Amino acid sequence: MAVATERARRPDSFSQAVKESVAARDLCPFCPGHEAMTPPEVLAYRAPGMPANGEGWWIRVVPNLYAAFRPEPDGQEQRAGRFWQRDAIGACEVLISSPDHRAPTSTLPRRQVEEMVQAYVDRYRHHAQNAWVEHVLILYNHGRPAGASLEHPHSQLYAIGLEAPAFADELDGARGFYRANAACVFCRTLEDERRAATRIVFENEAFVVFAPYAARTPFETWIMPRRHTASFGDLDPSREKPAFAEALQLTLRALQEGLNDPPFNYFIHSAPAKADVADAYHWHLELIPKLSTAAGFELGTGMWINVVKPEDSAAFLRERIQKVAEPA
Amino acid sequence: MAVATERARRPDSFSQAVKESVAARDLCPFCPGHEAMTPPEVLAYRAPGMPANGEGWWIRVVPNLYAAFRPEPDGQEQRAGRFWQRDAIGACEVLISSPDHRAPTSTLPRRQVEEMVQAYVDRYRHHAQNAWVEHVLILYNHGRPAGASLEHPHSQLYAIGLEAPAFADELDGARGFYRANAACVFCRTLEDERRAATRIVFENEAFVVFAPYAARTPFETWIMPRRHTASFGDLDPSREKPAFAEALQLTLRALQEGLNDPPFNYFIHSAPAKADVADAYHWHLELIPKLSTAAGFELGTGMWINVVKPEDSAAFLRERIQKVAEPA
Repeated sequence: MAVATERARRPDSFSQAVKESVAARDLCPFCPGHEAMTPPEVLAYRAPGMPANGEGWWIRVVPNLYAAFRPEPDGQEQRAGRFWQRDAIGACEVLISSPDHRAPTSTLPRRQVEEMVQAYVDRYRHHAQNAWVEHVLILYNHGRPAGASLEHPHSQLYAIGLEAPAFADELDGARGFYRANAACVFCRTLEDERRAATRIVFENEAFVVFAPYAARTPFETWIMPRRHTASFGDLDPSREKPAFAEALQLTLRALQEGLNDPPFNYFIHSAPAKADVADAYHWHLELIPKLSTAAGFELGTGMWINVVKPEDSAAFLRERIQKVAEPA
Repeated sequence: MAVATERARRPDSFSQAVKESVAARDLCPFCPGHEAMTPPEVLAYRAPGMPANGEGWWIRVVPNLYAAFRPEPDGQEQRAGRFWQRDAIGACEVLISSPDHRAPTSTLPRRQVEEMVQAYVDRYRHHAQNAWVEHVLILYNHGRPAGASLEHPHSQLYAIGLEAPAFADELDGARGFYRANAACVFCRTLEDERRAATRIVFENEAFVVFAPYAARTPFETWIMPRRHTASFGDLDPSREKPAFAEALQLTLRALQEGLNDPPFNYFIHSAPAKADVADAYHWHLELIPKLSTAAGFELGTGMWINVVKPEDSAAFLRERIQKVAEPA
């Protein structure tokens, strides 16, 4: 658990928190012309000759102004008996995927989605090489019920100096399967899913989109490269990048059009640079629509109750994706 | 992960789900006079001579009409390669804590809170003795953002034939600590917390209320018996029951009045009947206000970011609880 008082409001202001709405457009720090509202950019794709931190960009990456982690490799530890804490070490960035305040990924030109993916790769590689980084997570929150606090479409990157428990569990499972079977559990899952076919949503030459067998929520969907690759940083630019952009965009479009633009989260799970799991792990994207509320049962048990079978979710999205697919 | 299509709506109706409001009063199945809207009661406290499933009750427990689990001890398993499923075995009940549609626990007469606790104990013991039951969870969801689908105050009970992962992790930790130290980790925590004092919210003769060291959310609060007891079913009726009712009600009242009635979840973690952990485990209640949204970061990492230090949460609630405490 991370304590981040940098983000804090006063305790007595919490009563208002649930009633806040997203920032209005004229105050949006991610819109062109408002570049001075963010910390200086760490990456931008813009026309040649245009100065940094001005207009003219089509992708812009900036440090998160409300960072839960700080990039201090020499963070301190404190112990008092069994009570132990250390500084929250890490980098937090915001990846603005388009100058257009109102353009979600599902409606961007395909070429722009590829540029967003390229920015993911660039920043992933940048952080994964740092010695103190244990884990790099790239994620997207869509809609306020899914935790988006600003309306302008943006992804987030966290590079942290800790093992992430949810990811560590997955990694341990993959390592165990590899030891027992000398095979990647994700490659095996792709084979099984393609044979069963009932949970497949979409396939192209380099990616498979499917509803996982133990889906946590209605319409949970995974996007996985067919080529065995542990690290997202190894995305092949000529073959895999456009295929990933296509798979992601069509899935998001099917979700948006089929389910009336529901809130969702997605994140990329990728093996940490240092972990020696090149054979056992297989990077992928997990997309989790927010159509129900985790309540006392989920908190108390750590279990999810899913009211839709993954086969039904997949059939619904498969049909939709055929309707929304267009030539790239 | 549990699939519960009994609860399902059609996929294309999900787009409306987030916009639903709580049921209006004249349709409330939990109000007196509407007893026929629920399955027949499994427990009720009512005046002598009044017939079952009519009015006159002050506590009423009924099976959950939208049960995610079904009480079928002979549930089936299916295997297809590595894909494995079994029937969701369990009992789901609703504990209606007052005939008054508008009376949350924080405003009930203290005597009524004790009756609610008695109903918790009665139903806990009833289910914990069943051979197929692995875990009994009693929980409360308050407010729609915390998953309450009906406004009339009610608790829920799940008796399930599975290990619950979140609880199993806690149990493993307690077992490990006991093996290493021949002591209960929760008893030790109570000692440490009382010595540190900074995270204590309230104490009475039998319970300690405190903000846990690694609080997941602002104002997360635990209520723990001072007496070492693994099972909630062993709550002492003369000494502990009124003290638990007091601690719970004052904490909820401080939360409601101090933070403008925020949504919250609470649940009771109690050692399963069969688990041989009488020495290692210590039952308690975990109260988790819903003041922020779990988003991509929390889903992707399994970590929580808390924007308020537990010491500040505790100081705020400690001050509030002094204001709201009245003689029982």
